[in-house]
Amino acid sequence: MKKLVLTGAAGRLGSYLREPLSQMADELVSTDIADDIGTLYAGESYVQADLAKYDEIFPILEGADMVIHFGAIVDEKPFEELLGPNFIGSYNIWEAGYQQGVRRVVYASSIHAVGMHKKRDFIGIDAPHRPDTFYGLAKCFTEDLGSMYWDKRQMESVHLRILSAAQVNNARALGSWLSYDDLIHLVERAIDTPSVGFSIIYGVSNNDRAPVDNTLASFLGYKPKDNAEQFAEKVLAETGPADVTDPAEMLQGGPFAKVDLGESGIAQMTIVNDKKET
Amino acid sequence: MKKLVLTGAAGRLGSYLREPLSQMADELVSTDIADDIGTLYAGESYVQADLAKYDEIFPILEGADMVIHFGAIVDEKPFEELLGPNFIGSYNIWEAGYQQGVRRVVYASSIHAVGMHKKRDFIGIDAPHRPDTFYGLAKCFTEDLGSMYWDKRQMESVHLRILSAAQVNNARALGSWLSYDDLIHLVERAIDTPSVGFSIIYGVSNNDRAPVDNTLASFLGYKPKDNAEQFAEKVLAETGPADVTDPAEMLQGGPFAKVDLGESGIAQMTIVNDKKET
Amino acid sequence: MKKLVLTGAAGRLGSYLREPLSQMADELVSTDIADDIGTLYAGESYVQADLAKYDEIFPILEGADMVIHFGAIVDEKPFEELLGPNFIGSYNIWEAGYQQGVRRVVYASSIHAVGMHKKRDFIGIDAPHRPDTFYGLAKCFTEDLGSMYWDKRQMESVHLRILSAAQVNNARALGSWLSYDDLIHLVERAIDTPSVGFSIIYGVSNNDRAPVDNTLASFLGYKPKDNAEQFAEKVLAETGPADVTDPAEMLQGGPFAKVDLGESGIAQMTIVNDKKET
Amino acid sequence: MKKLVLTGAAGRLGSYLREPLSQMADELVSTDIADDIGTLYAGESYVQADLAKYDEIFPILEGADMVIHFGAIVDEKPFEELLGPNFIGSYNIWEAGYQQGVRRVVYASSIHAVGMHKKRDFIGIDAPHRPDTFYGLAKCFTEDLGSMYWDKRQMESVHLRILSAAQVNNARALGSWLSYDDLIHLVERAIDTPSVGFSIIYGVSNNDRAPVDNTLASFLGYKPKDNAEQFAEKVLAETGPADVTDPAEMLQGGPFAKVDLGESGIAQMTIVNDKKET
Amino acid sequence: MKKLVLTGAAGRLGSYLREPLSQMADELVSTDIADDIGTLYAGESYVQADLAKYDEIFPILEGADMVIHFGAIVDEKPFEELLGPNFIGSYNIWEAGYQQGVRRVVYASSIHAVGMHKKRDFIGIDAPHRPDTFYGLAKCFTEDLGSMYWDKRQMESVHLRILSAAQVNNARALGSWLSYDDLIHLVERAIDTPSVGFSIIYGVSNNDRAPVDNTLASFLGYKPKDNAEQFAEKVLAETGPADVTDPAEMLQGGPFAKVDLGESGIAQMTIVNDKKET
Amino acid sequence: MKKLVLTGAAGRLGSYLREPLSQMADELVSTDIADDIGTLYAGESYVQADLAKYDEIFPILEGADMVIHFGAIVDEKPFEELLGPNFIGSYNIWEAGYQQGVRRVVYASSIHAVGMHKKRDFIGIDAPHRPDTFYGLAKCFTEDLGSMYWDKRQMESVHLRILSAAQVNNARALGSWLSYDDLIHLVERAIDTPSVGFSIIYGVSNNDRAPVDNTLASFLGYKPKDNAEQFAEKVLAETGPADVTDPAEMLQGGPFAKVDLGESGIAQMTIVNDKKET
Repeated sequence: MKKLVLTGAAGRLGSYLREPLSQMADELVSTDIADDIGTLYAGESYVQADLAKYDEIFPILEGADMVIHFGAIVDEKPFEELLGPNFIGSYNIWEAGYQQGVRRVVYASSIHAVGMHKKRDFIGIDAPHRPDTFYGLAKCFTEDLGSMYWDKRQMESVHLRILSAAQVNNARALGSWLSYDDLIHLVERAIDTPSVGFSIIYGVSNNDRAPVDNTLASFLGYKPKDNAEQFAEKVLAETGPADVTDPAEMLQGGPFAKVDLGESGIAQMTIVNDKKET
Repeated sequence: MKKLVLTGAAGRLGSYLREPLSQMADELVSTDIADDIGTLYAGESYVQADLAKYDEIFPILEGADMVIHFGAIVDEKPFEELLGPNFIGSYNIWEAGYQQGVRRVVYASSIHAVGMHKKRDFIGIDAPHRPDTFYGLAKCFTEDLGSMYWDKRQMESVHLRILSAAQVNNARALGSWLSYDDLIHLVERAIDTPSVGFSIIYGVSNNDRAPVDNTLASFLGYKPKDNAEQFAEKVLAETGPADVTDPAEMLQGGPFAKVDLGESGIAQMTIVNDKKET
Repeated sequence: MKKLVLTGAAGRLGSYLREPLSQMADELVSTDIADDIGTLYAGESYVQADLAKYDEIFPILEGADMVIHFGAIVDEKPFEELLGPNFIGSYNIWEAGYQQGVRRVVYASSIHAVGMHKKRDFIGIDAPHRPDTFYGLAKCFTEDLGSMYWDKRQMESVHLRILSAAQVNNARALGSWLSYDDLIHLVERAIDTPSVGFSIIYGVSNNDRAPVDNTLASFLGYKPKDNAEQFAEKVLAETGPADVTDPAEMLQGGPFAKVDLGESGIAQMTIVNDKKET
Repeated sequence: MKKLVLTGAAGRLGSYLREPLSQMADELVSTDIADDIGTLYAGESYVQADLAKYDEIFPILEGADMVIHFGAIVDEKPFEELLGPNFIGSYNIWEAGYQQGVRRVVYASSIHAVGMHKKRDFIGIDAPHRPDTFYGLAKCFTEDLGSMYWDKRQMESVHLRILSAAQVNNARALGSWLSYDDLIHLVERAIDTPSVGFSIIYGVSNNDRAPVDNTLASFLGYKPKDNAEQFAEKVLAETGPADVTDPAEMLQGGPFAKVDLGESGIAQMTIVNDKKET
Repeated sequence: MKKLVLTGAAGRLGSYLREPLSQMADELVSTDIADDIGTLYAGESYVQADLAKYDEIFPILEGADMVIHFGAIVDEKPFEELLGPNFIGSYNIWEAGYQQGVRRVVYASSIHAVGMHKKRDFIGIDAPHRPDTFYGLAKCFTEDLGSMYWDKRQMESVHLRILSAAQVNNARALGSWLSYDDLIHLVERAIDTPSVGFSIIYGVSNNDRAPVDNTLASFLGYKPKDNAEQFAEKVLAETGPADVTDPAEMLQGGPFAKVDLGESGIAQMTIVNDKKET
Repeated sequence: MKKLVLTGAAGRLGSYLREPLSQMADELVSTDIADDIGTLYAGESYVQADLAKYDEIFPILEGADMVIHFGAIVDEKPFEELLGPNFIGSYNIWEAGYQQGVRRVVYASSIHAVGMHKKRDFIGIDAPHRPDTFYGLAKCFTEDLGSMYWDKRQMESVHLRILSAAQVNNARALGSWLSYDDLIHLVERAIDTPSVGFSIIYGVSNNDRAPVDNTLASFLGYKPKDNAEQFAEKVLAETGPADVTDPAEMLQGGPFAKVDLGESGIAQMTIVNDKKET
């Protein structure tokens, strides 16, 4: 592998991926909207860029084999705030990637693309979209975008529907936890599998109580090793009886299944197409 | 029913709907980006508006029971051209509708949301999204948006995945044709059914060779009467042997399954949020 | 056919079936807990009996080819009130029938065996039980009983899950209506089909808006002719906007999906087994 | 269409197809192992040939657009008797057809490819093979052969799983009957549909009691018009109670589901490859 | 957890559960119809009661968080013998539990609720009911009861479909064995999982040859550790060739799939409702 | 077990099975078309025979409990070359086995019976046949043959769809590898399971990247231990970017999914039935 590009390199998950990715290719180009991501690893360079601006993304992807696309606003926000980084940003990665000959995008999708399904339904990767937030809607949009670029242009993508990558300090996380080691393993498999077409896989550790089913993504060979059950005794001791009428308790999306949609007093969004004349 | 709003009223399908819709409510507000839609029907008024501008859409929906949302660019175009009317426009309809207390949106979705499925697969309304174009991707986006507003806010929508509403002058249309009478019947059922939640239904006539399955939407009571088979002898006589390696022949999306994605030299899209200060 | 037995002959549906059944066999024995069912048809005789008493049911079934079992309390009641006629009554019919060599039971089951499913789910005959009331629970019990007698003893049964057989005077009935003519046709097919094994079929007319799917029961050849759509214009004109959070609106069971379970101050049920010594 | 070839032209079904096929192409070449098929229709010629002999089949297919392959031994026989016409014959049609540029084969498959499924299971065209006889096994073999020629060589085929095309004089036929008119309609659709890929469809009339499901083959537009129900009263009056332990009663294959497999004292089959040296 | 109630505490499985349950709550109330269950564990008390008598059950459940309901006649018997403890007993637990504010019932269901399915079908928890005995029918009844109390009253239940909890001394048990340790682990998970709604799970150890599929119940985090394969060599050495026509060999229910239904000379069952006047 | 018969004993896989099979029965009869298979194991005898000749196969099966049928041409060849050993050979094994009272056949089927399915589809044992070669077509034929002998004659068979049993020296084999130890384990389970009916199972090791799903065959208790992942680093380092338009890369059959069908200049196949007169 000659060149990988990592977006969202300053983010929580992105920053964990920098080192292992730097070892998987001759060159790693990390990018983010932040000024700076600190000390670089061997083979790594950093370019500041706004995902919402095609002009800034396009040159970064030149010569890249794959893009590891983790850049986005990582919270529920009004639609117009997510539109740039989370929607247009995805378009820019795929379209600029295609124009630059990028072979594959590995994308940080999310359980929130299907967050309104019940936990007890043990959904597989083929569950229909049921976004719980505008944040989740952007994940749906990007998965469909990836599907189209594969069907129409044979550009591959793996969509990692991450459940939750934080610490295990509540009962939901006993099922949804994705450890950092397993995240790295997952990204590695998404990269090293020779052909992936358009694939979806849940990003979740080998938890006893995992509420989702990766069976249909087995060919990727993702075999997580960590298990949140080690935290069960402590967490459950601190957990009161569940409110079984609470969407945050019963649905895949957890708190996002309950939260209000990002709302704003927005009056107007205008698209400015500042195409440079040629 | 007190008030209905029809978007895309100047379009080909929209213009057919004006008369029947004007008879289903005390008041029909038709809107489009066009200057004018000609003579108005009893009870109809016209308001020019740009779907991409929340400010222009919001007041139109005041007091409306339902919105019949047929407004959009109806062709494959570069993403940045569709972004305003087809993506943001949908958001504006749902969000402004919600803020105004609109009960339901009846949306002109399209077969192109699932256009990369094979015709021989006889897909149902639960087939996963497989858009064939950016045009189709906007339909996917809007369906997912409608799903979310139902799950989170109990705002209903019916998504009419129209196959083709033109004349029957090629072999594909023997399966995909939706007559105008059946279109009107379909819209009426989408309106008069007391509760619809979030529903999807294919807009296709009662063609012998229809390649899609509405079984799961049966509760809507859509019973089309026209049948493209009346044109079969003539059309088939003019049709040569099929090229079975041609996506346009084999896939649901027909020509769109084969067409290049809308491409452009776009350099940048910028979101201008001109929210009025309060 | 030599002999048919009809239970619940004094009930609303049972009384409609007496005449057609009397014409399908040399002898029709009608039974009910009522004193009297009025003038008898040619070939018909009447025996008063309590379904809950094996001693009273057993002799009636002697020599019968089939039992048309429509007897039961037809409303939601406390469990202990339904236990006799609706639960033990079913057991008595099957066990006494088996001991008497009866070939088949045609049973008035009900949508309330699956009443907690969503109307929009368009459930088939293979939908899992989700009773909405103790009344529905008795239907589940009897269906499972029929399944067992078929699997273990090759005694056949057809379970007619009737949706609603009353007049069409509300929006739900536009989907759920079963006309009397179609009921009679359905019972005839349940009788004249040479082999049925253990079968389930929804009792619903050919309504445009029928919310259930009889596809898997097609071999029975039930082809209803009536269509509640003839009442749609009138009914819908009188119907206000639906409350989409109301189970009675959204679920198959309609009002039963919302009603409180039959509750009582019951303290104790005791089984008295007054087996006659032999 | 320039040229069609019909095999089994002297057979019961084949002889019904000669006239309509002769009208669908400039030239119809009928073939069979019989000496003679009587008076020819306009545009029809006859060539005697043994399906088991590649040398005899190859030249007949020269220039043909499609082959309507109805030739075979139509009864259960020992394997070695069926091997020539029913197995090798199919291979010869597909391989010679491919070498001659034939676009499509329309094949008389049979319910006996899936005859061991239960009638009550209402199997679709995607039911797994469960042959009831060597006769049915040859149908399975040919369907798989057709699948392979489509997947590997883009040579199309439609496999008509005919249920029973005889008179309706028993209860099974109330479900399984295929009228001659519907057979002709079915073959016409298998020919005139522009692209079919590899398709399977049940050959059964529009019988109320049809035990199989053609839903997934809907795109072919087969809409049968006849209904065996017209014979129901008479047939059922003559039918005694069914033996529900009899495979002939309960399984799709009817009598073939019960019959002994074709058995013989065969000691050896030898393949003689008399390839002409080149 | 303040208070747990265990029914069937004198039974084989119940007696194994007493100690671990006594450690999971401040108070364990064990109950059975037996006079005595021997030495009590710390925190445990014993109350003799008849499950069939609401009056006796109601006070026991006061203040209980959950009921572990293992009480029943554990064998095939005539229906009228099972009616009291196995049917009415279940009703009493759920209804008294609901009236007392119990949050959840953990119920000893059984493979015999689905015992007439084939072992080779590897049924999941969503397999339709196919009881093999009246014993199994009572399990079906109770599962449906639990479903209804969840749907209508948000009272939770977990239904443990135990396969076989005896020693491994025959070939069937190589697949069906549930070790005592795994039973305890299973009950613990059914209790400690924060929300379970209405759930079904098979009670079977981690046997190589397990014939049922718990995939859809994964969220409960049941991870059995024992494996009957340790007994395979010995057991298989003692096992002759299987009789593949024997239901006891081929069906999930094993011997119960073959056994005659519980039969009796019962003449009458009478329900005595001795409700205390208020 | 008294007697086992192994066909294809001189082949690569067959020769690995000789020793373990010789230990599972009093007597092992190995057979092949080869002159000789070298030194025999204790209890083993060798008989040279041509699978295509019933006369030679019939006496070998006398008194056998089971046949382990691995004999066949193991490569893509013209149909007429495979017809004898791979098609007629299978018939001879089943028919002679049946006549000799053989209880079960364990058959070396192959992934090539379903080779045209996508690797990403993670097919189960119930995937429809999609052969990739005449070699695969013979596997389909034999599976259907085995299904019929089970349904009609209660003769059991296990069909081991082996993926690839060679060394792991390419990326495909990371998923498809079946180690020799796992092969032996698989054959042992196919033999020692008391009843198998008609079963299919994939022959693949416990590879992280296995592209097929044995869930539905779980009752056989096949638990492979080897994992090709041990070779992943080395193999992937030598593997260039995949060509995602190459069937050999994307489909289950690997190279066979791409290879031309075995083609020949065959002119005629003749069946010679040299039945000995009796």
